[in-house]
Amino acid sequence: MKIEGKHYRSVWVDEDGWSVRIFDQTRLPWALEILRLTDEEQVAHAIRSMQVRGAPLIGAVAAYGVALALREDASTERLETVCAMLAETRPTAINLRWAIERMLAALRNQPPARRVAAAYAEAKAIADDDAETCRRIGEHGLPLIEQAAARKAAGEVVNVLTHCNAGWLATVDYGTALSPIYQAHDAGIPVHVWVDETRPRNQGAALTAFELGRHGVPHTVVADNAGGHLMQHGQVDLVIVGTDRVTRTGDVANKIGTYLKALAARDNGVPFWVAMPHSTLDMRVRDGIAEIPIEERAGEEVTELTGRNEAGEIVRVRVAAEGSPAANPAFDVTPARLVTGLITERGRCDASEAGLLSLYPEKG
Amino acid sequence: MKIEGKHYRSVWVDEDGWSVRIFDQTRLPWALEILRLTDEEQVAHAIRSMQVRGAPLIGAVAAYGVALALREDASTERLETVCAMLAETRPTAINLRWAIERMLAALRNQPPARRVAAAYAEAKAIADDDAETCRRIGEHGLPLIEQAAARKAAGEVVNVLTHCNAGWLATVDYGTALSPIYQAHDAGIPVHVWVDETRPRNQGAALTAFELGRHGVPHTVVADNAGGHLMQHGQVDLVIVGTDRVTRTGDVANKIGTYLKALAARDNGVPFWVAMPHSTLDMRVRDGIAEIPIEERAGEEVTELTGRNEAGEIVRVRVAAEGSPAANPAFDVTPARLVTGLITERGRCDASEAGLLSLYPEKG
Repeated sequence: MKIEGKHYRSVWVDEDGWSVRIFDQTRLPWALEILRLTDEEQVAHAIRSMQVRGAPLIGAVAAYGVALALREDASTERLETVCAMLAETRPTAINLRWAIERMLAALRNQPPARRVAAAYAEAKAIADDDAETCRRIGEHGLPLIEQAAARKAAGEVVNVLTHCNAGWLATVDYGTALSPIYQAHDAGIPVHVWVDETRPRNQGAALTAFELGRHGVPHTVVADNAGGHLMQHGQVDLVIVGTDRVTRTGDVANKIGTYLKALAARDNGVPFWVAMPHSTLDMRVRDGIAEIPIEERAGEEVTELTGRNEAGEIVRVRVAAEGSPAANPAFDVTPARLVTGLITERGRCDASEAGLLSLYPEKG
Repeated sequence: MKIEGKHYRSVWVDEDGWSVRIFDQTRLPWALEILRLTDEEQVAHAIRSMQVRGAPLIGAVAAYGVALALREDASTERLETVCAMLAETRPTAINLRWAIERMLAALRNQPPARRVAAAYAEAKAIADDDAETCRRIGEHGLPLIEQAAARKAAGEVVNVLTHCNAGWLATVDYGTALSPIYQAHDAGIPVHVWVDETRPRNQGAALTAFELGRHGVPHTVVADNAGGHLMQHGQVDLVIVGTDRVTRTGDVANKIGTYLKALAARDNGVPFWVAMPHSTLDMRVRDGIAEIPIEERAGEEVTELTGRNEAGEIVRVRVAAEGSPAANPAFDVTPARLVTGLITERGRCDASEAGLLSLYPEKG
């Protein structure tokens, strides 16, 4: 997608042909800083510190991390050690493990001498696949927005609420939840996005608002608390969110607070859709609430916060009372019963085992 | 309640016998600054800018504002002008209008020469009544916490979740939602409070955490997004919140985001109680969602934020992407069907017309 008219992906190989480039997303929206990653430790740090985040993007960047590691030592032992290390950097996103397993499958039986080239090729394939997957999610989500527009008077705006950032910054390109919105906007449908700020890390206020603003999509930032009120008053036509993991039964792990919006959507008859690339599907898990590990991040992400002061400097401030501790579960699980449906690169389906198997029979 | 061992109320008359003292709650938790209000314009500013906030406290401070205004001119015209002006400072809280109407009723038929003394007396009575009301709410809420404790193993902590600040800083003393918690803690029941940070103004992280910390009540700040996840995992035994207005049918207006917590409580079988002083009851309104005006505050409260930097200075920072607008509805309405019950100074009742009339037959 574009920033000031220039096309970017959110991860790419440098002109040097081997080092890996990403945006430092902890500096967005205030500064557009491009980082150069040269080894697997820098990749692990970028994932843990959320310089890159978003389930699909994490998977692609981790894949390049494997390639970087093998440049130094392409032995099988090294391959396995690095894959195990990278797989542990974030516990909730399943694409991370999916990407690592895809790398292992592509490389394990290669002779060490061919592994570096094969690793770059496979990482590129993962990145290209993700971009194409997201483009198709946009195609399959677009009719939902078109249908909402058709139910309104001509020219009346369609209001979509989203939580966190599931845009192109969370993927390699296009985004998951935002991909249908970009396609609708580009097709001339009047669409407006309610952007949940998404505490504690403000990915909505910082990243989704940044993306939409740069692309020219009308949007309004709201506190995460506001969505229920907006739905009660008919100001939300549909909700579209991304996901970090979907279970065999259609339970959806996503950014903390997603579950609350799903409850409000159900209570107000608002459709609640989840944009799901195939790589987030985890057929080994049935009960998302009982089985998906939820990452507990540092309490300081709640009690402290980064912003831009009047002098234009990026500063960290404490917002909570001194001495008060904080808890910070990073994700929650929305039960399948609250999900209207899933938008995938193969089409839309019910959030259920039958729905998923209708689109992914090979995973049965 | 106490700060560092010294007892305070949240509004009082200065030693000079006429000016009014409050804490500047926009400076808490970083600085304990006491303001001196000397006329009705300062009072109106204190309410609008949220130097004082919390439905019961706003009512008491507005009452003193009437007294300050009459010192200059105690005519009937002046009385009515000032009352109309103060009643408009915040649209959602009904206590504000209740307190103003009580002042009007007490003063209208007094000769002007007696009005100043009568106004101070009536404002003091409103403040004293509020403190006593809150103490009794604590007494009637305490059994809910005792019962939760009785269902647990001896010594196991009772987890209460609260939203916004309905503590002593929101009232004249003791608080509404926090009053039963203080009483439970003081009675030796092991109670722990999940404090919703309460975006966008962070009254939970700043004020509730401050209050509870100073009183020694164990608590943990969480993002507003976290409550649903905590309830899914059995980490919340009950929810207690305050209210700005309760309708005849038991609908509850409270800080934006309360409705989402009520939905999650219902979905997980967690009792959801609302602490309601009589002054927040508005028998003229039936349908809270359709009829209660919801204050829309400035979008900057969402996109910008106040905190303490590393140098100890209180600074304002922007958190949202440049150029992105924000909407800021300050309250939402929780339908009565989601409310387990109301805790009042007269006892507990169902959130329904029958329940309310059983405790307040004179309002029928």
